[in-house]
Amino acid sequence: MHLRKSFMALMAVASLNAWAEFKALPPVPPIPVDNPQTPAKIELGKQLYFDPRISADGSISCNSCHNVMSHGGDGRPVGAGIHGKRGGRGSPTVWNSAYHTVQFWDGREASLEGQAKGPMTNPVEMGMANHDIVIGRIKQIPGYVEAFKKVFPKDKEINIDNVAKAIASYERTLITPNSPFDKYMRGNKKAMTAQQIRGMKLVDEIGCTSCHTGVNFAGDGLKMGEGNYQPFPQIPGSKYDKQYDLTSDLGRYEVTKKAEDKNHWRVPTWRNIALTAPYFHNGKVQTLDEAVRVMAKTQLDMDLTETQVADIVAFMNALTGEFPKQTMPMLPHTVGTTLTPDP
Amino acid sequence: MHLRKSFMALMAVASLNAWAEFKALPPVPPIPVDNPQTPAKIELGKQLYFDPRISADGSISCNSCHNVMSHGGDGRPVGAGIHGKRGGRGSPTVWNSAYHTVQFWDGREASLEGQAKGPMTNPVEMGMANHDIVIGRIKQIPGYVEAFKKVFPKDKEINIDNVAKAIASYERTLITPNSPFDKYMRGNKKAMTAQQIRGMKLVDEIGCTSCHTGVNFAGDGLKMGEGNYQPFPQIPGSKYDKQYDLTSDLGRYEVTKKAEDKNHWRVPTWRNIALTAPYFHNGKVQTLDEAVRVMAKTQLDMDLTETQVADIVAFMNALTGEFPKQTMPMLPHTVGTTLTPDP
Repeated sequence: MHLRKSFMALMAVASLNAWAEFKALPPVPPIPVDNPQTPAKIELGKQLYFDPRISADGSISCNSCHNVMSHGGDGRPVGAGIHGKRGGRGSPTVWNSAYHTVQFWDGREASLEGQAKGPMTNPVEMGMANHDIVIGRIKQIPGYVEAFKKVFPKDKEINIDNVAKAIASYERTLITPNSPFDKYMRGNKKAMTAQQIRGMKLVDEIGCTSCHTGVNFAGDGLKMGEGNYQPFPQIPGSKYDKQYDLTSDLGRYEVTKKAEDKNHWRVPTWRNIALTAPYFHNGKVQTLDEAVRVMAKTQLDMDLTETQVADIVAFMNALTGEFPKQTMPMLPHTVGTTLTPDP
Repeated sequence: MHLRKSFMALMAVASLNAWAEFKALPPVPPIPVDNPQTPAKIELGKQLYFDPRISADGSISCNSCHNVMSHGGDGRPVGAGIHGKRGGRGSPTVWNSAYHTVQFWDGREASLEGQAKGPMTNPVEMGMANHDIVIGRIKQIPGYVEAFKKVFPKDKEINIDNVAKAIASYERTLITPNSPFDKYMRGNKKAMTAQQIRGMKLVDEIGCTSCHTGVNFAGDGLKMGEGNYQPFPQIPGSKYDKQYDLTSDLGRYEVTKKAEDKNHWRVPTWRNIALTAPYFHNGKVQTLDEAVRVMAKTQLDMDLTETQVADIVAFMNALTGEFPKQTMPMLPHTVGTTLTPDP
């Protein structure tokens, strides 16, 4: 009895600490000192983000898999690249990705700039053989040549680092503030329903917030480039491992080749999670309530009641932010020819 | 000599008549009486136009092949649908398609409403098994249910005809006015360069305008639903037939199965033609100057000089209009689940 009381007391303290890590979304994400935001750079980045000409056959843009007219992903289990090729993992949402300290499911890039370069040359995504070919395409589009001169006046030639900088600058504008949770955290206690508040307390009490903390619910107090990697499943052996193929992709291990990184993943954000089904790195789980059940079992060895699941899902719905209106970019034209003959 | 003089006089008259058929783009395209434009309908149509959830695997929207952030096509030889499947023909531009009296390369649909339904169930495009499945998806998205009630208050259920009406309404806003040619036709004689004016006269003199007439350079005086079908090649047997595979697709014959329709095609628009490479139904010709050479040879049996080609291309550049700024639609969200599990 004494032991149990001590344990409860300890849990209460832990819980209190975790509570302190619930945070509203800051209005501006971290901006790297070597890539300040400018309106012209953001506009250039938006054009590049939507431009399918930087894929091998001209059919795939960044927006194809990370759709900013929607929840910032593609709503599909795994990405679909050129010629319908399928990737092995789902497309993480680009919304609020600027708050992440590392990028990709396995955290293999430390910045949005680093991330932006990856899909262009991934054979199952945009499929360009190398970045020189990307640059060669861009150089054939007069409107881009002019825009790069204006945005990066010190650089004589268009280069892939500047392409990535422009795209990352645009992505840093993709913020969804003012979710019910954010309003609640800023003092409007009516912004969340009673059920949502129950769900918020519950995720904290049962321990979800030991990983899902901070402004993006993906880790707190981390520096840019520093990842919050966690095992998933934490407790292997549940029925879900096989049902949803949770262990065959080794995650961060594929980056580091260290045994201790097997099945480790960057903690994904909870923001707008109600909109970004299907769930997990392989998109095998189609609904949010099932995702909650799977996580409780595989990470905390808990079988939640249906009421608990509903409360947590209600809280997660309180994490849906406001999506700003945007103007469409007009892509600078290729005149009199095509850059994308079919291979 | 007498005969030749008569012929020249006849040609001058013919030319004069053709000249009369050069027309500036009217600010508003024809609107069907049973589908009046309303702001709410246009906005709903824009959402549907950009929504990949109405394709089988959630990867393809109307905008994937008819990109309104660019020239309204995809800049590729033929369209790329779900799972990277390739169509047999290029994606015609959606810009100014509202002025066309028939739709598709072979004119098989009389209206934009009719056209809009086709790609959804085309197995190499959006790949839905039937329209009921399209409607079933849309009904699962609460934002659409609400919007359809508002836009089509008399119809209890969402139906495919209303889906098509909304999309067509949006497409009727996709107009590019104020090309140099349009300004010239409205009286600004400085709007075109001397070379562009030479090119304009040349296309008329050599006979291009016997087919490429009217506001959209695709036929004049036609009623909606009435097509201007022409043989291509008009004069088979040139080197281009084989080089660009001009005869294997039988065009309008595939619709009517009438022998006289073999290799007949709807006359395509010249508007924004400098931006919509590659050219012809199969996209085999990559540049505009080559397209001009091919047309002169296959349709008029003429070998143009390089100066003539350059003048005509210059005129065609004068047909590039102004693309209006648009706001991005925000797609109504699917909450807590995915509608597009991979088949």
